[in-house]
Amino acid sequence: MKHILPEDIEQTSMSIIAQELGERGIVLPKEHDAVVKRVIHTTADFDFARNLSFTPNAVDLAKAALLRGAAIVTDTNMARAGISKPALTKLGGQIRCFMADEDVARAAREKGTTRAMAAMEKAVRQYPNAVFAIGNAPTALLRIAELIEEGLQPALVIGVPVGFVNVVESKKVALMVCQANGIPAILAMGRKGGSGVAAAVCNALLYQAAEEIGLVN
Amino acid sequence: MKHILPEDIEQTSMSIIAQELGERGIVLPKEHDAVVKRVIHTTADFDFARNLSFTPNAVDLAKAALLRGAAIVTDTNMARAGISKPALTKLGGQIRCFMADEDVARAAREKGTTRAMAAMEKAVRQYPNAVFAIGNAPTALLRIAELIEEGLQPALVIGVPVGFVNVVESKKVALMVCQANGIPAILAMGRKGGSGVAAAVCNALLYQAAEEIGLVN
Repeated sequence: MKHILPEDIEQTSMSIIAQELGERGIVLPKEHDAVVKRVIHTTADFDFARNLSFTPNAVDLAKAALLRGAAIVTDTNMARAGISKPALTKLGGQIRCFMADEDVARAAREKGTTRAMAAMEKAVRQYPNAVFAIGNAPTALLRIAELIEEGLQPALVIGVPVGFVNVVESKKVALMVCQANGIPAILAMGRKGGSGVAAAVCNALLYQAAEEIGLVN
Repeated sequence: MKHILPEDIEQTSMSIIAQELGERGIVLPKEHDAVVKRVIHTTADFDFARNLSFTPNAVDLAKAALLRGAAIVTDTNMARAGISKPALTKLGGQIRCFMADEDVARAAREKGTTRAMAAMEKAVRQYPNAVFAIGNAPTALLRIAELIEEGLQPALVIGVPVGFVNVVESKKVALMVCQANGIPAILAMGRKGGSGVAAAVCNALLYQAAEEIGLVN
């Protein structure tokens, strides 16, 4: 067992990740580097080096939005719990998840939709220009894609649901819709993803944004 | 895109997982089946079919403890957020995470240890026979292993930290210590794991325990 200071563990981990990416012959575009490495740091899964898909300038546009204090909306309380509150607070942003709200449950029952869809509908009324970080529900991601087609302009779509039913398809649809409408997006194509991945993408962006204005994490 | 009712998505996912395990030639012991499948459901990562390691009767012993109302202690608020509150409440259990406590931060500073270790020390004073679900910090898992060597008797150790530094080693040590001391343990050997995996293992156990006494999830 290596005796290593807690503050050095992350740096050592990132060095190992960089080295093993090199051994796999993977060269990350500079703009994507921090996001991809943080997702691998969170999952220990190098598949994400190939699965993560970015629209042009997605990272720079997302950082700019977070520096303006954009809110982050998630589709799980687990992703909300994993996002760095100190970094977000320094940037003046906030994080919201409406999944457990009573009025969301009621709206879903009345309309015969999923709670995740109803939660997104509530979110876009309050935070139409938020970063939407979807780590669980393909229906939430598809609803955001539909709303973009109707004119919604989120700061960023993080589309990383995980699973076996409609997940792969929902991410393909979201990527196409975001590309066609000029909306920045970061998606984990394929089956993999999850709340931890959603939080990791958010944190990589928050840390970079905070660093940009000289705030230490 | 398949039109499928939300309540059928999980069942369909589990059928796909069962089929693809078969295609990979993987036959799960009956006792491990629900835990392994739920972790794959949460991660879409079939590596866990081979990574997850169980001490003898770990699942049955854990279910019995949860039916007695055993508490669950986690090392991240993210894992806490991911554990099913309805199932836990039905069983009379509770879930605790001490990572964000001010006295834990102070104890860690004073002793020069990690917050995760200090959080475990606080936890074992209050809940010595809990289920300890460690999804992040190898130092937390190692501290639990040391305390077991000193006589601690947790109901179950879920050891699924994720990462690149001391993670693999911490899980090997924990497995050896649990085996030597007759403590039930479920570990994700290797680098992979995480808060989502910790929550998935807990939920698989909680659902089975609730089902056993005729409570519907």
